[in-house]
Amino acid sequence: MLGANEAADFFLALSTRAQAELLQELGPERSRPWIRLLAPDDAADLLQALPAEDRFSFMALLDPVTQGEVSALLAYAEDAAGGVMNPRYMRLRPDIPVEVAIRYLRRQAIRGIEVIDYAYVLGSDMRLLGVISFRELFAAPPEQLVQDIMHVDLVTVAEETDQEAVAHLLVDEGLLAIPVVDAEGRMKGVVTADDVAGVVQEEATEDIQKIGGSEALDEPYLQIGFLDMVRKRGRWLAALFLGEMLTATAMGFYEAEIARAVILALFVPLIISSGGNSGSQAATLVIRAMALGEVRLRDWWRVARREILTGLALGCLLGFIGLVRILTWQAIGHVYGVHYLLVAFTVAGSLVGVVMFGTFAGSMLPFILRRIGADPASASAPFVATLVDVTGLIIYFSVARLILGGTLL
Amino acid sequence: MLGANEAADFFLALSTRAQAELLQELGPERSRPWIRLLAPDDAADLLQALPAEDRFSFMALLDPVTQGEVSALLAYAEDAAGGVMNPRYMRLRPDIPVEVAIRYLRRQAIRGIEVIDYAYVLGSDMRLLGVISFRELFAAPPEQLVQDIMHVDLVTVAEETDQEAVAHLLVDEGLLAIPVVDAEGRMKGVVTADDVAGVVQEEATEDIQKIGGSEALDEPYLQIGFLDMVRKRGRWLAALFLGEMLTATAMGFYEAEIARAVILALFVPLIISSGGNSGSQAATLVIRAMALGEVRLRDWWRVARREILTGLALGCLLGFIGLVRILTWQAIGHVYGVHYLLVAFTVAGSLVGVVMFGTFAGSMLPFILRRIGADPASASAPFVATLVDVTGLIIYFSVARLILGGTLL
Repeated sequence: MLGANEAADFFLALSTRAQAELLQELGPERSRPWIRLLAPDDAADLLQALPAEDRFSFMALLDPVTQGEVSALLAYAEDAAGGVMNPRYMRLRPDIPVEVAIRYLRRQAIRGIEVIDYAYVLGSDMRLLGVISFRELFAAPPEQLVQDIMHVDLVTVAEETDQEAVAHLLVDEGLLAIPVVDAEGRMKGVVTADDVAGVVQEEATEDIQKIGGSEALDEPYLQIGFLDMVRKRGRWLAALFLGEMLTATAMGFYEAEIARAVILALFVPLIISSGGNSGSQAATLVIRAMALGEVRLRDWWRVARREILTGLALGCLLGFIGLVRILTWQAIGHVYGVHYLLVAFTVAGSLVGVVMFGTFAGSMLPFILRRIGADPASASAPFVATLVDVTGLIIYFSVARLILGGTLL
Repeated sequence: MLGANEAADFFLALSTRAQAELLQELGPERSRPWIRLLAPDDAADLLQALPAEDRFSFMALLDPVTQGEVSALLAYAEDAAGGVMNPRYMRLRPDIPVEVAIRYLRRQAIRGIEVIDYAYVLGSDMRLLGVISFRELFAAPPEQLVQDIMHVDLVTVAEETDQEAVAHLLVDEGLLAIPVVDAEGRMKGVVTADDVAGVVQEEATEDIQKIGGSEALDEPYLQIGFLDMVRKRGRWLAALFLGEMLTATAMGFYEAEIARAVILALFVPLIISSGGNSGSQAATLVIRAMALGEVRLRDWWRVARREILTGLALGCLLGFIGLVRILTWQAIGHVYGVHYLLVAFTVAGSLVGVVMFGTFAGSMLPFILRRIGADPASASAPFVATLVDVTGLIIYFSVARLILGGTLL
């Protein structure tokens, strides 16, 4: 029902997945004009969204030049700079005047190259020599040579650079595009901000879901199938549950103490959850700092020192509140028996130890995960809490034995 | 030590904060050439980074036109589209031929307007009529009129649109720039991808830090002062601790049961942590889905139904694992006494209830927070865990009374 231009705009505005579904509906023969609308990097994305058995029949619809470009793109890992870059970009030679350069660019635009802010200046060997913004070209005297006004301090990425790294570099440098060069400095393509705009967001989503103690869903919450969701969440919950079973074992070791002083059991949830909370707080802060590149593997000792001190301060804070709470309740209701003061110090002392340990363990876990090549974001709040719970119980009952031995125990 | 051009590039590459510090160092008089390098939106950011008492002396260094633009920008909220937009953009009239349009654009570029992918077509009343990409202009026949090739299906934002919404719109629509228009459709400026590139990242960082149970740090982890960090983390930990104290009160109610059947105490950490884990998992997924706009307030009932079923499935999974664990340990070591079967069913039954409640509560908390105008991300893993811990204890001991009444209890 749409005119040709509107239909083309509509098609280009669709998500890659929707484009793929539409073309499958139409079949290869009627798809030809549509797939030819796409830039090589978008065509490569579309082909990747098709079932493997259909890929070649759709690939055949492209013109030979684009076919070559698309095959090259498909050879790169999907999430590497080489896989998301556009192999077509505005290129100039260094030894031409500005006036000629602008005419060149205009001819390139007519050939269907996505226009971005920058034109890239290449030597005869395709080596990237410099970059110049359109504004600079437009504003320069017509007879000046491109090489005299181009910038030579270049921000580039390698073909195999991960797209997350490219996205962060774009954000950090405030650029709209970054050229991709090979090991010899030859320009292979350009990654524009819109190619990786979704990456920062997707990556944060994955991290957040992992921090929340789930596998990354990889699909919108309301669209993922029920069984898929239960499987992705159930796997982690079951793993955590198996870990958490150690608390029952640990509690088993202190059964005699609990039987003698039931009052000790009352504070178990308070103590272990304080350790878990402080641990997941520390882990989350470190995970995010790592994702943003603020903290690197070699910073572990700086972070450790910092977190031990922070843990001590936070532990003293919670210990103090706990002490006040027990003394107040005792003053009001005499609920904690004659040894209430010893109980209060047991709880307060344990809190200092548990919070310190939780903070330290939580902050170090992301480093350990990264060191062994795992995703630091897997140090989820529930994972850290589970780890700290068992240790928290041991710390609590050890402190209790120390302080209450001979009286309550 | 740098030449004029290198020094200017260096200055422009600095962060706003670093630029502000440098100019304060130089003092207003020597700052004039530097501050004049900045586009109005960047100058406004810089002024905002200066101490309030210095702002006017630096504002006075700008030329009168820029002064007007900067004052207008400063009148907008810092995080609204109006506050981050650039009031200078490439503009064209609809009734001129392409050839003339390109000459116009060139002249505008010389006047120092940031060149982006698009030129905006305005009527005589400044109303935004259409948009055209440079590629389309370059590729069109020179004598064609702009109004015949411009796009009229526009994506625009209002001046007061939050910058997070603008960032998501840019990502979702795959655009490099979005025009800002007032209520009458008059164009006020343009927000480019690099203006809000950091926003998606910052926003995710805040959400992640909150989900981890801390206040947003607002500063890089290794740069924030020790006391600031302890304060931001301590406030939340203390609040959670006060909530968690209810567990001690709840446990107090069941002191008699624990004294009679110490074995019940052994499973307390396991039960409550399972509720906490499933709850923080559900809360995190919903928080992120809300942040991405996948889930809206009115979807609460869809989410609730989904999470109750998911909770039931996950609860049965963990309950089954718990049952197997107790029966296995019993078969090996006879550790759980004669009533081990009843104990096993108490634990399994409680797990179903606790995980279901945890999942449900965790998924609804972000809705409640948003409904009352708070940030859904405050439904942190530790917050949900604390909420679920108390309920978990009540569920556990109620199930125990039901199943074990007359035997162990």
